[in-house]
Amino acid sequence: MYDVDAIRRDFPILSRQVNGKPLVYLDNGASAQKPQCVIDAVTQGYSMEYANVHRGLHYLSNLATDKYEAVRGTVARFLNAGHEEEIVYTSGTTEGINLVAYAWAAPRLQAGDEIVLSVMEHHANIVPWHFLRERQGVVLKWVETDVNGDLDPQAVLDAIGPRTKLVAITQMSNVLGTRVDVEAICKGAHDKGVPVLVDGSQGAVHAPVDVQAMGCDFYAITGHKLYGPSGSGAIYIKRERQAEMRPFMGGGDMIREVTRDAVSYADPPMKFEAGTPAIVQQIGMGVALDYLMDLGMENIAAHEKGLRDYANARLGGLNWLNIQGNSATKGAIFSFTLDGAAHAHDISTVLDKKGVAVRAGHHCAQPLMDHLGVTATCRASFGLYNTKAEVDALVEALELCHELFG
Amino acid sequence: MYDVDAIRRDFPILSRQVNGKPLVYLDNGASAQKPQCVIDAVTQGYSMEYANVHRGLHYLSNLATDKYEAVRGTVARFLNAGHEEEIVYTSGTTEGINLVAYAWAAPRLQAGDEIVLSVMEHHANIVPWHFLRERQGVVLKWVETDVNGDLDPQAVLDAIGPRTKLVAITQMSNVLGTRVDVEAICKGAHDKGVPVLVDGSQGAVHAPVDVQAMGCDFYAITGHKLYGPSGSGAIYIKRERQAEMRPFMGGGDMIREVTRDAVSYADPPMKFEAGTPAIVQQIGMGVALDYLMDLGMENIAAHEKGLRDYANARLGGLNWLNIQGNSATKGAIFSFTLDGAAHAHDISTVLDKKGVAVRAGHHCAQPLMDHLGVTATCRASFGLYNTKAEVDALVEALELCHELFG
Repeated sequence: MYDVDAIRRDFPILSRQVNGKPLVYLDNGASAQKPQCVIDAVTQGYSMEYANVHRGLHYLSNLATDKYEAVRGTVARFLNAGHEEEIVYTSGTTEGINLVAYAWAAPRLQAGDEIVLSVMEHHANIVPWHFLRERQGVVLKWVETDVNGDLDPQAVLDAIGPRTKLVAITQMSNVLGTRVDVEAICKGAHDKGVPVLVDGSQGAVHAPVDVQAMGCDFYAITGHKLYGPSGSGAIYIKRERQAEMRPFMGGGDMIREVTRDAVSYADPPMKFEAGTPAIVQQIGMGVALDYLMDLGMENIAAHEKGLRDYANARLGGLNWLNIQGNSATKGAIFSFTLDGAAHAHDISTVLDKKGVAVRAGHHCAQPLMDHLGVTATCRASFGLYNTKAEVDALVEALELCHELFG
Repeated sequence: MYDVDAIRRDFPILSRQVNGKPLVYLDNGASAQKPQCVIDAVTQGYSMEYANVHRGLHYLSNLATDKYEAVRGTVARFLNAGHEEEIVYTSGTTEGINLVAYAWAAPRLQAGDEIVLSVMEHHANIVPWHFLRERQGVVLKWVETDVNGDLDPQAVLDAIGPRTKLVAITQMSNVLGTRVDVEAICKGAHDKGVPVLVDGSQGAVHAPVDVQAMGCDFYAITGHKLYGPSGSGAIYIKRERQAEMRPFMGGGDMIREVTRDAVSYADPPMKFEAGTPAIVQQIGMGVALDYLMDLGMENIAAHEKGLRDYANARLGGLNWLNIQGNSATKGAIFSFTLDGAAHAHDISTVLDKKGVAVRAGHHCAQPLMDHLGVTATCRASFGLYNTKAEVDALVEALELCHELFG
């Protein structure tokens, strides 16, 4: 039984007010709030169990190392990876995708080679590929979404040509909420011998993930959206791809031997993890993932589907509200504009006065904004602790906006 | 008045026991413990003030952004940088130096161009340059330390040739404790038109830093050694050098505009900060730096000089103990081996049984180990909260080692 009221009590910030109103936090697409168990793990880590990892032999160093390394198994379970060694720690999805761009793609792709991506990618899954275009002549091939915001897997596969070396695709749009059939894309791309990187920043937050069933080569997640600490994250990299990669950042921990004239590297995953890591953050991310698995990702998905359906119905009743994206696969992410002159920033400011936190802007998805013919939207993005009453609060605040600006 | 007993009460972990003994934490060179004010700032950040930064307009996002961005000024004050914009946030020194290697050096250095570095650099200030050697034929020129572990600034300057494009040098050895006259190196190198990167990982922890007086081009620090959270850090980059740099990681926040065919970048420092950053960690680092500045870096340096002198005297009395490095500039970092067959790892294990936490190994400085003719040492590294009684505890534990292994 999914008891959202009990769950809300796990998140201390949800009991606070902003601007004299109870906080209605609908900015989960940007970052999620943290349960007390995560906060407590971080506090305990710094207060009583802190030391650097890997290189010490004393009690605290061993304790911190054990807790830190155990998270690799937690991430592997969360993603159903076949091997713990396929989990590489990162500071978030951005670093994860840059790791793939610098360590796998840059040394392999030649001028004229192609990367296929969708028009609804987040900048984190665009700009690293633009670097390869700028620096070495790689060609970016864009696949459109349809009028509902759906991405046809066949359209992605049709974009694959003989020079295509990678498909880089989101599992879930951070603007439209569309879920992509990445499994079909991975299968079709592999039939053509092309690896697939899946941006799981949003996808992993809202439904169960199984990277083995999906068949992807790379799957990036970010801890702060998964109710974990800022600065935490990981990327699943299939063994065969790891074997093709050079290191990304250089420093301590990722080497086997350093001399004046030569350097050799540790085995994966350490090869890709340089320097003192985000020790306590990663431990906190492990606690967050355990929290999610204890709730059950299926249960979270079902709860959020209820929120989506309710919000669809309530927001659909506002005939001056223009919602972007209407996919049947859509998650509980609603980007919208209002009829009339109200700018997205003005709308979000009015909502904020009512305690409703939403985001306004291009959501790091400017090519999608161009595709949609807008410069900015407001976005209400729901998470595991949101309620139908908060949908009502959003609607009420929007009605006030409509009165003010309509 | 520097009241070390009062200061110790600020650090909750220092009151704990390990292996039934009071913790004597002498592994500060690897990472420092955190004062309660830092822990509280992290807890408060996650519990009541959390949201993503920069892209929101709601109350919590503005609050988090204000706190997060204010740290840039704190770092600038801590380093006496002339402009806040010269402070780029990183996850630590490793990322900072890799940023310079990828974004400044890689596109500028040609095969045969040289980087001058000392034999006592940490791997974080070696491996990124080895990448340039491996990938584009850059030549690494090594400067020796003398028998005391001192590095003659003139020897560094003499190594600069017509093809030298960068001097990369530590301010303080993490193994020997030697402090380097980086000001003289910067002045001399600049006279020859060569920029200087200073690795401040250790240097900034133990004495005041003034990057303007030093004259360096790049100065990297890491928050976790500065009594701040893991995963925090910054690098000072002089404006002229920033103007020469391309971006490092691509993603949100670092762009001006992204289209399907083009990308343009934000102004520094944002140009070098991609994606959701380590929000709460950086806020915590700001609190740690304020804590250090409140104590006074001169006072910390004076306290640690007292520890160094006392430890020099006490350890110097153990004629079976071989201390590496005997510079007059030496800080309170002691790397040593014992006469006889005891391996550094065995020694550290025995010390740990007595509650004394030290590190054993190559300390991410294998070229220095080769230079010293050892494979590993034990290292006792002191911090602002250590006491002479803890020096005594170290000596007592070492005497036990000598009995066991001698």
